[in-house]
Amino acid sequence: MRTSLARPCDGPIVTDAYTRAGVDIEAGNEAVRRYQSIAARWRHPSQLDALGGFGGLFRMPGDPDTALAASTDGVGTKVVIAAQLRRYESVGADLVNHCVNDILVVNADPLFFLDYLAVGKLDPDAAAQIVAGVQDACRKHNCALLGGETAEMPDVYGAEQFDLAGTIVGSVRVADIPKPENVTAGDAIIGLPAVGLHTNGYTLARKLIGSDEFGHAFGDSTFAEALLAEHPSYHDAVRAVQDVAHVKVMAHITGGGLLENVPRTLPPNVKAIFEQSRWPVPPFIAELCRRGNLDVNERYRIFNMGLGFTMVVPLLEAERAKAAADGARIVGWIEERRGGDPAVTIHPARQ
Amino acid sequence: MRTSLARPCDGPIVTDAYTRAGVDIEAGNEAVRRYQSIAARWRHPSQLDALGGFGGLFRMPGDPDTALAASTDGVGTKVVIAAQLRRYESVGADLVNHCVNDILVVNADPLFFLDYLAVGKLDPDAAAQIVAGVQDACRKHNCALLGGETAEMPDVYGAEQFDLAGTIVGSVRVADIPKPENVTAGDAIIGLPAVGLHTNGYTLARKLIGSDEFGHAFGDSTFAEALLAEHPSYHDAVRAVQDVAHVKVMAHITGGGLLENVPRTLPPNVKAIFEQSRWPVPPFIAELCRRGNLDVNERYRIFNMGLGFTMVVPLLEAERAKAAADGARIVGWIEERRGGDPAVTIHPARQ
Repeated sequence: MRTSLARPCDGPIVTDAYTRAGVDIEAGNEAVRRYQSIAARWRHPSQLDALGGFGGLFRMPGDPDTALAASTDGVGTKVVIAAQLRRYESVGADLVNHCVNDILVVNADPLFFLDYLAVGKLDPDAAAQIVAGVQDACRKHNCALLGGETAEMPDVYGAEQFDLAGTIVGSVRVADIPKPENVTAGDAIIGLPAVGLHTNGYTLARKLIGSDEFGHAFGDSTFAEALLAEHPSYHDAVRAVQDVAHVKVMAHITGGGLLENVPRTLPPNVKAIFEQSRWPVPPFIAELCRRGNLDVNERYRIFNMGLGFTMVVPLLEAERAKAAADGARIVGWIEERRGGDPAVTIHPARQ
Repeated sequence: MRTSLARPCDGPIVTDAYTRAGVDIEAGNEAVRRYQSIAARWRHPSQLDALGGFGGLFRMPGDPDTALAASTDGVGTKVVIAAQLRRYESVGADLVNHCVNDILVVNADPLFFLDYLAVGKLDPDAAAQIVAGVQDACRKHNCALLGGETAEMPDVYGAEQFDLAGTIVGSVRVADIPKPENVTAGDAIIGLPAVGLHTNGYTLARKLIGSDEFGHAFGDSTFAEALLAEHPSYHDAVRAVQDVAHVKVMAHITGGGLLENVPRTLPPNVKAIFEQSRWPVPPFIAELCRRGNLDVNERYRIFNMGLGFTMVVPLLEAERAKAAADGARIVGWIEERRGGDPAVTIHPARQ
């Protein structure tokens, strides 16, 4: 289990395909171990358990019934594609929505956001497009864009290159923080549809689709559009489901896919079973799996495979939960976990 | 006046020396103008005026008498020197202390921190040293390290390169947020000593001191030590001064130096007068000014010139304010500002 210090980074995804793409797996796992030992050295008394590490939790000063939830994240090497295509308008929403979803896992609503934009050579047009995208996505969540930093660092970034990260702070009533111990065998898993890679798997995707192909047709559109498809916010869909069903725990499917993210909010005595035949794999992700010749383990760790967010609900509430949000499906269920069982099993679709 | 969106970035520092070092000034100013127009489009009702933009302020949900203060920052191209020297233990403190000082300007005490570490190739030793430095500096301020992100991005960063940014969140009683309108002609300015460049001016400094000189002796030490000297936290010194004097406004002297940072928390009807003979310029900064042949405007914009933090206090309380913190000095005073007067004037030391 990761701590809030050792976070959903690109590092600890153990697959051959990722290693071939230039991401060092063992180094990632080792860094996570070091972070955990650093985090263990001292803990602030107001820190609460971080429920899978999607967001950190801190008891609100003066109000013990409320907690602040915070998360920092980036958009990964999706920025490389945005820079190559000079398409800056959607990375802000990618970033904000990713962070909104991370603290949604602990049931927090956004309060404010701060961005960090670092560039090799400052292009005011590009910077303004990026920050406007951040502000628009914040506004859609009634979240203040409270500040940020723009750094021009010519010797760290190439002239056309940039990086974008951000920090979200939200709040949640302590009583509303999901409790993994409520999850029991027989619960259903509701999945919300992904629209593309979101913000994960880009280092591999860029090895599989060359920049000379970006303009080529793919489906109704182009590879460029498919690669830059916006990371959606699941905030409203989750709140709609919660209006009709008891959502016991949730997971934001980011780096590590279903295999690594779903177990982060499950108790150790249960496992999640997914049936791939219950939801479609987006054609773009299927194309990447085909080109990369990815095995099942690789597919479900590197890519979201069509599910962007999952919720565990009581079986009897699953149908109405499904009906409450566009595109929601019952994608699997919870079973008892016995010694040696994997925390997640995915039954493949019939070919 | 900058907004909390258009922030103390490396951009808008207008000097020839900076342009020669490869930082595009006009682009920075243009980006700031764009950010201001983006920020003006929408403002969350809980956002408070940001007092010079050092930290954003957000009214605490459920407690209108308290505000959360937040700031995101990086350590600039000091990371390039740290990477060249493979010296990773102090950049974490640079980052945390920088952020602590930023929200100290609005009188906030730290609650929690999150870091963003991006690397070209993940070296677990280096990453752990950096994050341990962040955690140690947080602990010194009783500030939780609530989370963070480590991203391995081989096509954005060179193999040995990294970037480090972070976000701090603190709290302050709304009644304790400094009020610029209290500042009057005749007030004194207390300065706290800088120990080096802190986290600003490195793009120029690296043009003036080649990496082949890093090991050369300078003063009692080496150029490497002088370049990596830790950005200090002024938290305890400021609290000690506040115990004995009414601190009306403060400024953290970062990019833009005394000339740009001091006016950010002054009302428009006053100006700040500094007398360089009242405090020493650190020999290392003097050496950089000499090598760069910097004029007065350049020196006081690019470098802190020996003052890391300033406080405006009533004249009658200046002596006891000075006595309350190690190294504090009375470095200037406030005068009435008439049309056309610059907001800051620095009387040079006699040669």
